Amino acid sequence: MSTDDSPLPNFARGTDGLLPAIAQDATNDRVLMMAWMNEEAWKETLQSGYAVYYSRSRSQLWRKGETSGHRQQIEEIRVDCDADTILLKVHQKGAACHEGFESCFFRKVNAEGTVAIADERLVDPAQVYGKKSS
Amino acid sequence: MSTDDSPLPNFARGTDGLLPAIAQDATNDRVLMMAWMNEEAWKETLQSGYAVYYSRSRSQLWRKGETSGHRQQIEEIRVDCDADTILLKVHQKGAACHEGFESCFFRKVNAEGTVAIADERLVDPAQVYGKKSS
Repeated sequence: MSTDDSPLPNFARGTDGLLPAIAQDATNDRVLMMAWMNEEAWKETLQSGYAVYYSRSRSQLWRKGETSGHRQQIEEIRVDCDADTILLKVHQKGAACHEGFESCFFRKVNAEGTVAIADERLVDPAQVYGKKSS
Repeated sequence: MSTDDSPLPNFARGTDGLLPAIAQDATNDRVLMMAWMNEEAWKETLQSGYAVYYSRSRSQLWRKGETSGHRQQIEEIRVDCDADTILLKVHQKGAACHEGFESCFFRKVNAEGTVAIADERLVDPAQVYGKKSS
């Protein structure tokens, strides 16, 4: 491993200062979800050791798992060649997806171009989030 | 596996009609890169069986590997819960990264918050792309 003076994530490159962050399960390498980070979310992720994103719909920091308990403990962080995408390797507690699946990518595109659910649901979202499942 | 009437990728949700597309190696599950797709790129990906993205810097379709030969043959396509992120499982020929690494995520963030190259370079970009390495 060699040191490198390449920049850390360059949030100025993102639309509205947001960069895509991919969460990958550190144990089974499954891609769990993609969300957005601003610089504040990035710093809090580094500082806390848990994934913190920025919710575009709520316009605020999103401490993943704050409601559900399904937190993502950081194992490793990588940054891509253009310093504008972040990869988090995480230890996922519970289901990553708010719909109760291990991964948000539970829908598979078939050869005909249609979509079908390809995974089993792990948990009932109503149990995790109360009546509101999203 | 059950059928589902959920939408295919909803390109209207993306900024400028672009959605993030994550490429993951179908063999070793490594996350290789993140790029952008518009609806045209999506359709050509489905039709051709090879990853086609949209280059924001060149404002045109980017048939991955057209110059380098480092094409990505599609093994499986998944769409996330919000239908606004695409996951491609691919058979990657050569190096996914234009800097000659297997994955664009070759930089690791250390505990101190600095960045270091954590992988070995597979190929010399000058050999693949000619004098211009980007």
